[in-house]
Amino acid sequence: MASTGKVSGVHVIAPTPFTDDGAIDHASIDRMCDFFIGAGCDGITVLGQLGEAPKLDARESMDVAARVIRNFGSKPVIVGVSAPGFAAMRALARDVMDAGAAGVMIAPPNTLRTDDQIVNYYRDASQAIGPEIPFVIQDYPLTFSVVMTPGVIRRIVNDNPSCFMLKHEDWPGLDKISTLRGFERDGSMRALSILVGNNGLFLDFEMERGADGANTGYAFPDMLVDVVRLSKAGQRDAAHDLFDAHLPLIRYEQQPGAGLAVRKYVMWRRGVLSSEAQRKPGARLGPTARAEVDYLLARLARHDPRAGKLPNG
Amino acid sequence: MASTGKVSGVHVIAPTPFTDDGAIDHASIDRMCDFFIGAGCDGITVLGQLGEAPKLDARESMDVAARVIRNFGSKPVIVGVSAPGFAAMRALARDVMDAGAAGVMIAPPNTLRTDDQIVNYYRDASQAIGPEIPFVIQDYPLTFSVVMTPGVIRRIVNDNPSCFMLKHEDWPGLDKISTLRGFERDGSMRALSILVGNNGLFLDFEMERGADGANTGYAFPDMLVDVVRLSKAGQRDAAHDLFDAHLPLIRYEQQPGAGLAVRKYVMWRRGVLSSEAQRKPGARLGPTARAEVDYLLARLARHDPRAGKLPNG
Amino acid sequence: MASTGKVSGVHVIAPTPFTDDGAIDHASIDRMCDFFIGAGCDGITVLGQLGEAPKLDARESMDVAARVIRNFGSKPVIVGVSAPGFAAMRALARDVMDAGAAGVMIAPPNTLRTDDQIVNYYRDASQAIGPEIPFVIQDYPLTFSVVMTPGVIRRIVNDNPSCFMLKHEDWPGLDKISTLRGFERDGSMRALSILVGNNGLFLDFEMERGADGANTGYAFPDMLVDVVRLSKAGQRDAAHDLFDAHLPLIRYEQQPGAGLAVRKYVMWRRGVLSSEAQRKPGARLGPTARAEVDYLLARLARHDPRAGKLPNG
Amino acid sequence: MASTGKVSGVHVIAPTPFTDDGAIDHASIDRMCDFFIGAGCDGITVLGQLGEAPKLDARESMDVAARVIRNFGSKPVIVGVSAPGFAAMRALARDVMDAGAAGVMIAPPNTLRTDDQIVNYYRDASQAIGPEIPFVIQDYPLTFSVVMTPGVIRRIVNDNPSCFMLKHEDWPGLDKISTLRGFERDGSMRALSILVGNNGLFLDFEMERGADGANTGYAFPDMLVDVVRLSKAGQRDAAHDLFDAHLPLIRYEQQPGAGLAVRKYVMWRRGVLSSEAQRKPGARLGPTARAEVDYLLARLARHDPRAGKLPNG
Repeated sequence: MASTGKVSGVHVIAPTPFTDDGAIDHASIDRMCDFFIGAGCDGITVLGQLGEAPKLDARESMDVAARVIRNFGSKPVIVGVSAPGFAAMRALARDVMDAGAAGVMIAPPNTLRTDDQIVNYYRDASQAIGPEIPFVIQDYPLTFSVVMTPGVIRRIVNDNPSCFMLKHEDWPGLDKISTLRGFERDGSMRALSILVGNNGLFLDFEMERGADGANTGYAFPDMLVDVVRLSKAGQRDAAHDLFDAHLPLIRYEQQPGAGLAVRKYVMWRRGVLSSEAQRKPGARLGPTARAEVDYLLARLARHDPRAGKLPNG
Repeated sequence: MASTGKVSGVHVIAPTPFTDDGAIDHASIDRMCDFFIGAGCDGITVLGQLGEAPKLDARESMDVAARVIRNFGSKPVIVGVSAPGFAAMRALARDVMDAGAAGVMIAPPNTLRTDDQIVNYYRDASQAIGPEIPFVIQDYPLTFSVVMTPGVIRRIVNDNPSCFMLKHEDWPGLDKISTLRGFERDGSMRALSILVGNNGLFLDFEMERGADGANTGYAFPDMLVDVVRLSKAGQRDAAHDLFDAHLPLIRYEQQPGAGLAVRKYVMWRRGVLSSEAQRKPGARLGPTARAEVDYLLARLARHDPRAGKLPNG
Repeated sequence: MASTGKVSGVHVIAPTPFTDDGAIDHASIDRMCDFFIGAGCDGITVLGQLGEAPKLDARESMDVAARVIRNFGSKPVIVGVSAPGFAAMRALARDVMDAGAAGVMIAPPNTLRTDDQIVNYYRDASQAIGPEIPFVIQDYPLTFSVVMTPGVIRRIVNDNPSCFMLKHEDWPGLDKISTLRGFERDGSMRALSILVGNNGLFLDFEMERGADGANTGYAFPDMLVDVVRLSKAGQRDAAHDLFDAHLPLIRYEQQPGAGLAVRKYVMWRRGVLSSEAQRKPGARLGPTARAEVDYLLARLARHDPRAGKLPNG
Repeated sequence: MASTGKVSGVHVIAPTPFTDDGAIDHASIDRMCDFFIGAGCDGITVLGQLGEAPKLDARESMDVAARVIRNFGSKPVIVGVSAPGFAAMRALARDVMDAGAAGVMIAPPNTLRTDDQIVNYYRDASQAIGPEIPFVIQDYPLTFSVVMTPGVIRRIVNDNPSCFMLKHEDWPGLDKISTLRGFERDGSMRALSILVGNNGLFLDFEMERGADGANTGYAFPDMLVDVVRLSKAGQRDAAHDLFDAHLPLIRYEQQPGAGLAVRKYVMWRRGVLSSEAQRKPGARLGPTARAEVDYLLARLARHDPRAGKLPNG
């Protein structure tokens, strides 16, 4: 299944469902996968930052990845393998590729500073996991404090044939997409899939700048699918209209750290998850925030019926 | 004019207008002040982070502050006096207070780490400028990398009688407002004006959590005035309707670093500034971004006529 | 073997020996343990930052810990269990305690900022591994960017009965030891073992400020043992004379990042390790640095015969 | 006096002397200059980080610089002009050059991250002050959190003809000097003066790696002069013998933040300063630290008579 071919559309970032007592919630994993596939997602990424990956032990990580791979069938599954050292990264990467993953995602450790340190890190990481394993660069300075210029990304891409995709979540990031697409046009960088994250906060314009799709986990991935489709079809106003209707909630869900509680709450309200539980550290929404999200959903329902008549709450 | 009384409403953050050749643009300062007063602003803050304060020399800083103070008449003007050392901070603070400022704003240096370091910094700063000068805490972790808990803010407030306001721009920050208001209710902290910044990205809910108003510089301060008024009047849906119409542009303008170019461009399009020029480092919008902002303005004009038929552009 | 009793003397920080091809070097582990015990060390810490812990996978980590525990017999072995999440931390902690470790060491993740975040982290970590497992606080701001005031350490100690020791490597750190000992005297903190790290750069004065010993990995732990003994015996000048003779090399070995290559090289020259190999990322000394260390060793040998006539090199 | 010629020897970093009530101590400035010249220093740098530059207002900064320039006569004086913005940097740079400074020193703001950001910053700074003003790069990651690779330094040097010197205080930094000298040999970088700082902690080996001298403020600049001279004369053992005798005190004085209090105390004991006072924030040594420094001086006096029979204390 491993592939470095072009990736596009919506590759949703999956949260990890837990039961109220903190166990992995397998029933919710299955339901969530069905939901994502039904929503039109083209692929999925598990064990990312928002998947609470560091809170899982090695066996649990493998368990979650394998179950999602099984559920997703022929659609590609990317697995986050970021780790403080290459031994654990390599072990997980090889195990999930054996289990049928399409590739892995690697975030830079937040101690990297210089351009060379970043480039060397990805070269070492690729060598550690094996140069045959396709990998995704996660470029998320807001969370990782590592700033990659377009030139650094080009160096990583050109150095590593197995690098097939950029999870773009720099902020601001619009000009970065334009610059990278320019590198492709001027021949200085081979073609790269660019899927955008950061909760989709700029998905509307990112598509217009040349993104191939979204790689984020907003609680309405069905909206992401529609916006990507509309944008690719050139229906600019329709894409923005739908996006703008969701923006108040997108913004609320994108709050650093706190956002995951919002996402899990909305996915619970939509009937996808049985519980909004997170493992520690991580907390549920308080009653005021919950009421604020409910209000946002009610307002959204006027424009998007998918936000109305929710099973739970 | 110095006062530690309760502050509320919209205290707009002023950019510093430059001509295309980088000189201070006095005509635009005057026009901008008229515009802000006409928009219903209750006060103004100059020489803040987005006012490009570090790009002015000492004489220019004083010049800008004095001109705005003259323009604003009886309405309070707060002046940013953040500096790498207390000597420069004290000099500017005393000069602007002599010129009629209502108070000063102090941001923490980004090297502070522990709670005690932050508390001590504000105590030393207040002693340096003089304990009779009212000051505002600027709490903006996204920019300054200094994280102040509600408890730290309470210590600063209780330690310094001259601290009269919090420029709240933590993110996420809703629960922080609720916690601080709880401190007032339980008697552990005296009453504090809380005006919110961060480009107003959460103004809608921040007002509902207990903020006294806005202290930010979004290019439509007239909208901020309306949202604050509607929210205080209990017209929740109307407040959100107006806010949501602006949110696509608010989001675009809130991009770290890049946002000021958007703001100056829109204020130029609105006829407030003669030029969108920034001093170095700092750049104008490129043509693609400019077109994106124009598109956002055109969409906004369908809901808010103030975004239509703009004098420039 | 688990114990929260008073710890003192030299608890050496162990590197992890690798063969030239990157495998765990079991023979060197055994030889190293014999060497440390013969040098008079009172205990050992494995899988710390300089033990290249993140470069080991879960099985290897357990393997190294168990082998050292077996070698050290009745002397206490502390195991670093720092991890990006509590699941992996808990798994390793419980396994090594079952294998006979005396306790575990926990470093704070470098994203912690406020006092409360640090205190909460240690409380959550202790709950995660189990409150019956004795743990060591690692206070190393130079490496972890987390600054703990004495007051924060006191809160952690008082909150967690299972916290029995501070690995003190703040810099500057002399007054911190004095302050913590003052907390014990004024009854605001229970007695705490304080062993000092940071390559022993201030061991001479730290002992005089009240440290119980050293918890570091300088390539001459036999010197650390002597300095601790002399200092406790009140032989101040003799302690400083010996320490000062080593200081040029200590300083050279304490270089951030690069220091481990020096340490492994000297331990190879002393015949303790069969190879100076590190796993990636990490490099051997270049020829110039090697010659510099040789020169330092030759100079040291004039004062301390243990630096002369080395088996290798 | 401005010159981009080769600089070598000891360019001492000057503290700013204050009286006990916080005023600039002019008598001590004059005495200190005489002392430095008498000690054989080849030049001096004022208003650096350890010169408490941010604690001076604009007039005081100019006053201190001018007085030192007058005292130093034909020997070159470099003035630190680092500032949060280019306006203040330009103003001070031009004023001190008019007053006879030989050049200025510019530290990078601690918000710079990528290679390009650093290179662009120095290009913009040079343009701001004027490309005719010779400037020094200050490379001090421990304090500024900005990491410059040798390649970045080469870009800055090659981009800016007015860059004439590197204040090298990276740590570890020995290989960096070797790499930069290699750039000169392979013709990829023009010749650059490299003077080392970081309190001289590695001066012994830095000279052997190719440094041109020292640019630091250790309280025994006369020792720095001797070590530089001995090293250049090829008297390796003698250079190290003298250096090693001072190393216990060098290490004590190099403690981040706390070091300046040590330096001022020793310079007071040597009769150079009338007071060890610092402006806030900044504190004198406590009695225990004072006694520790006295002990170090007494021990040093056995090897270097300059540390014995001190006028004060």
